[in-house]
Amino acid sequence: MNPKAIRKICYGVYIIGSKKGDKINGQIANTVFQITSDPPTLAISINKQNLTHEFILESKTFSVSILSKEAPMSLIGAFGFKSGRDIDKFKDIKHRIGITGSPIILDYTIGYLDCEVIAITDVGTHTIFIGKVIDGQELSDVEPMTYDYYHKIKGGKSPKTAPTYIKEDETEDKPASVSGKYRCKVCGYVYDPASGDPDSGIKPGTSFEELPESWTCPICGVPKSEFEKEA
Amino acid sequence: MNPKAIRKICYGVYIIGSKKGDKINGQIANTVFQITSDPPTLAISINKQNLTHEFILESKTFSVSILSKEAPMSLIGAFGFKSGRDIDKFKDIKHRIGITGSPIILDYTIGYLDCEVIAITDVGTHTIFIGKVIDGQELSDVEPMTYDYYHKIKGGKSPKTAPTYIKEDETEDKPASVSGKYRCKVCGYVYDPASGDPDSGIKPGTSFEELPESWTCPICGVPKSEFEKEA
Repeated sequence: MNPKAIRKICYGVYIIGSKKGDKINGQIANTVFQITSDPPTLAISINKQNLTHEFILESKTFSVSILSKEAPMSLIGAFGFKSGRDIDKFKDIKHRIGITGSPIILDYTIGYLDCEVIAITDVGTHTIFIGKVIDGQELSDVEPMTYDYYHKIKGGKSPKTAPTYIKEDETEDKPASVSGKYRCKVCGYVYDPASGDPDSGIKPGTSFEELPESWTCPICGVPKSEFEKEA
Repeated sequence: MNPKAIRKICYGVYIIGSKKGDKINGQIANTVFQITSDPPTLAISINKQNLTHEFILESKTFSVSILSKEAPMSLIGAFGFKSGRDIDKFKDIKHRIGITGSPIILDYTIGYLDCEVIAITDVGTHTIFIGKVIDGQELSDVEPMTYDYYHKIKGGKSPKTAPTYIKEDETEDKPASVSGKYRCKVCGYVYDPASGDPDSGIKPGTSFEELPESWTCPICGVPKSEFEKEA
């Protein structure tokens, strides 16, 4: 099987929220799809290692916040490359609690769906949760972020726990020779001086060495010391 | 729940193929997603009324042909709005039989995935089939067709058996007043003289009355007599 074939499937980019007792958590997911129209139901696929998985199993509820094309890498990094076991992901994020008790992101969200779990399917490393949509609203008419856009335009990566994770050596996207680029050892993000990091106010043309010491990886938030020069 | 929220989920457009004995069939689907990366598995959602559902239940195999942005409405119409119980959908369609015995479309397909069913989940009107990817290849680097593109650019509709079907009165896309437009009573396609039907060689500016009697609905293939004037 050529892994390039499976990468042609289209997805959006979402934050799945859930709760356990009085705690809330959320994580990035791209595998969200509608199953039936009457009643409206959704399926999501969540890695068993993730804290959100534990929360959904316990509360039998989840929310889907649909991210806009304009969502910054820092939002995706906070929810996609860090664990709610280590940090409070919602600390500086505008959100509210939905009808089911699950958190709904209000920044860079174009709509949300709040669901009660009605079926669970074990699929090895992941669980498929089927949810009945209890509530849902449109919040903006900005275009949704697609997974393709996230990868191609934003230069985003997938964590190892994602259904769509691909080992670096299985892709041919990496140029044979690069210079002046630095790669994050934690999430795989590559800082390219030619592009800079506009989300963090870093202009194109800024070398890695010129980045302020306070600069952190726009995806996973680790400091400059976690970067290594691309060979 | 505002149905506009659920329409913001991103999908591609696919033809799901399967077999039963020496018969093959296929249908349009938009709900295809990857579940795990090791081994690579996919989930698809299929309406229980569809012939393809019967075939997958029987053979425990299915293929996914990923359609290109360039796929004509006639291909989507043949596989999306007609039943394999009534016609041989593959009659004039370039295809081959995959490793599992399921058919793979070769025209306007940018890649395919051939799968063996490893789990089945009943979700009311639909069944979720989980398939292990046995074979898959990239066939072209043309961009995939997204569901959004199909609806917005191609003017496509969803059949009543689709997970994402929405009743006409639940949408606000229909203009308050139109003239010279004719609607297909079978699939809902609207012929707009301003756009013509370039896929069938009909130039913009051609009135419905001027269409040749041999012209058929570009989506579902019914004749002009199945059209009614938009009020």
